[in-house]
Amino acid sequence: MNIYFSCSLTGGRDDQPVYAAMVDYLLAQGHTVPTAHLAHSEVMKEEAEIDPVTVYRRDIRWLDECEAMIAEVSTPSHGVGYEIAYALRLNKPVLCLHRRNARVSKMITGNTEPTLTVEAYEDEKGASGTLQKFLETKFVR
Amino acid sequence: MNIYFSCSLTGGRDDQPVYAAMVDYLLAQGHTVPTAHLAHSEVMKEEAEIDPVTVYRRDIRWLDECEAMIAEVSTPSHGVGYEIAYALRLNKPVLCLHRRNARVSKMITGNTEPTLTVEAYEDEKGASGTLQKFLETKFVR
Repeated sequence: MNIYFSCSLTGGRDDQPVYAAMVDYLLAQGHTVPTAHLAHSEVMKEEAEIDPVTVYRRDIRWLDECEAMIAEVSTPSHGVGYEIAYALRLNKPVLCLHRRNARVSKMITGNTEPTLTVEAYEDEKGASGTLQKFLETKFVR
Repeated sequence: MNIYFSCSLTGGRDDQPVYAAMVDYLLAQGHTVPTAHLAHSEVMKEEAEIDPVTVYRRDIRWLDECEAMIAEVSTPSHGVGYEIAYALRLNKPVLCLHRRNARVSKMITGNTEPTLTVEAYEDEKGASGTLQKFLETKFVR
C-alpha cells in the first residue's frame, strides 16, 4: 500500500525517534511511504534547501496519490493539521497516533469525520501494533 | 462581517497578548468574531471543561458560517492547520499572520490556494494594519 506518513517538522522534532520507528515498521511490512525521509533525523537541513511551493506541491501530490494517511500528532504542527483535513476531505483513511500523555487538539480528538481513527500509544512497540491493526481493519489483505 | 479568528490553544499560548490585540481590533471595527473568547488569557480552563466533540462541532459550524478566516500562525497548532485547510476548501478568504521571525510550515508559506494570503508582522500595530488591508482588499465596503 501507498501510505502518506505525516509528522512535525517546523513545529518541533522531539518525537523524531518514534517517527523513524513507525516508518521503519511500515517499510518492513512492504508498504510504500513517499514521505519516509521526513522521519529521518537529518531531514530539517534537506527540507530547508527546498523552496516552500515545491514542498507544498510535492506533499499535496503525495496526499492525492496515497491510499491511507498516518499522522503522529504528539507535537503540534500546522502542516500536519492541514494535511489531516486535506486527506479527510478526500475520504482517505487517516490514523492519528499520539503518546498517551500528549495534549492533542480537540479538532483531532473531537473530530467526527467517518474515515478518521485517533489512538494513543505507550511506546514504539505499542505504536507498531496500532499501525498494524489499523491497516488490517481498513484493508482486507 | 463574520470573521473566524483562529489561534493556538493546546499548541501553546505564548502569543496570547497579540491574539487579544487582533480580536479587540476586529471587534472595534464592528465585526462579529464568534471565536473572540479564544484570544482571552483564561480560555484554556473554560475550553478544558467542554467535551472535544462539542468543541469540534461548534468550531466547524462557525467556520461554515464565517465570511473570512484570520489565523495567527506563529505557534504551531494542529487545530489551526486543520481549520485553514477546511476554510480554503470552502473557498473562504483566509489571512495567515505570523511574527516576522517565526518559523512557519511550508504547507502554509508555500500554499498556492487562491484565497490564501500569508503576511508577516513586526508588532501589534503592524498586525492591525495588515488585518485592515486584507479586509479592505477582499471586501469592498
